[in-house]
Amino acid sequence: MASPEIDALTQALARLPGLGPRSARRAVLHLLKKREGAMAPLLRALEAVNDRLATCSTCGNVDTSDPCAICADTRRDGRMLCVVEEVADLWALDRTRLFPGRFHVLGGRLSALEGVRPEDLAIDSLVARIAHGGIDEVVLAMNATLEGQTTAHYLAERIEHFPVRVTQLAHGLPVGGELDYLDEGTLAQALRARRPVA
Amino acid sequence: MASPEIDALTQALARLPGLGPRSARRAVLHLLKKREGAMAPLLRALEAVNDRLATCSTCGNVDTSDPCAICADTRRDGRMLCVVEEVADLWALDRTRLFPGRFHVLGGRLSALEGVRPEDLAIDSLVARIAHGGIDEVVLAMNATLEGQTTAHYLAERIEHFPVRVTQLAHGLPVGGELDYLDEGTLAQALRARRPVA
Ligand SMILES: [Zn+2]
Ligand SMILES: [Zn+2]
Repeated sequence: MASPEIDALTQALARLPGLGPRSARRAVLHLLKKREGAMAPLLRALEAVNDRLATCSTCGNVDTSDPCAICADTRRDGRMLCVVEEVADLWALDRTRLFPGRFHVLGGRLSALEGVRPEDLAIDSLVARIAHGGIDEVVLAMNATLEGQTTAHYLAERIEHFPVRVTQLAHGLPVGGELDYLDEGTLAQALRARRPVA
Repeated sequence: MASPEIDALTQALARLPGLGPRSARRAVLHLLKKREGAMAPLLRALEAVNDRLATCSTCGNVDTSDPCAICADTRRDGRMLCVVEEVADLWALDRTRLFPGRFHVLGGRLSALEGVRPEDLAIDSLVARIAHGGIDEVVLAMNATLEGQTTAHYLAERIEHFPVRVTQLAHGLPVGGELDYLDEGTLAQALRARRPVA
């Protein structure tokens, strides 16, 4: 019996990860009750992000500016480059505050099953960044999955002729674990104990 | 390192019931990734609801029209009136599709502890609706809490001189349970087995 507008809002929220129909209904009721305190700020925030949303043409991060805040931050150590599969992984690693360098988002991982080939990922632009010089270390921060590790090995081969140290996250990561689901302590430890690719 | 706009969106989402900082971050990433498929529909739905949001001046329901869809629906049985504490309870009961009548939202329950008195709730307007005539049955659908039951007894006394049958939900409800948290089957059963107020 809710109006079509309220139904549409409930459905839009229910499709977010972590929310279902039930929690979406509760969220909508909360928004309806707290129009000034919850609805208005959420609406303003969504509008602001939607208006300014951009994919960083350097690293592939999603932000409200291009270059993104990380690429634009001159205090970042440009000699270190951390390669990740997804934007979510970049954010997860950045939250540890332990990586002082910059990032490169591949946009996925190689997958024979899903037909994802090197040319489907941001690999050429990674190689170009490294070829451009000034980078001492490339951290391959792929997920600890078969496809993630396959991707890491592929990348290691693609960049082995450059004068850079290639490292990967320590495998304290649980097998099959996806970066974005791990707590920051585990991620921090894996980052600290990163080691050269064999 | 996320932009202020993305931070604000994450915080606005994190304050919704059922979401925390972690799930809000995942939701934001989902929105950023699926700009057309998730961000745009959510933004449009929020705008539409925010533009049209209204509290029904008849029953207190929150909807995008006044009178609300339930009060405006001529197929509803105007002889039956179900009184609830909150809009969330109205929605929960309406989802059972077992109550053919209309609703009245009190906006809370009597509470000595929180200083909520009869004049703080939509009780005068309830009495006025009943006095206006045409209502055969009033279902008191308060929560099965001490305060909910106190409120039900107070209401039963306030309306006992009207020629209406006053019923309440069967107490198959778990003690201390709040309507909005119950599954629809339990609610449906409690509604079917509703009995006259002793
Ligand atoms: Zn960037
Ligand atoms: Zn109404």
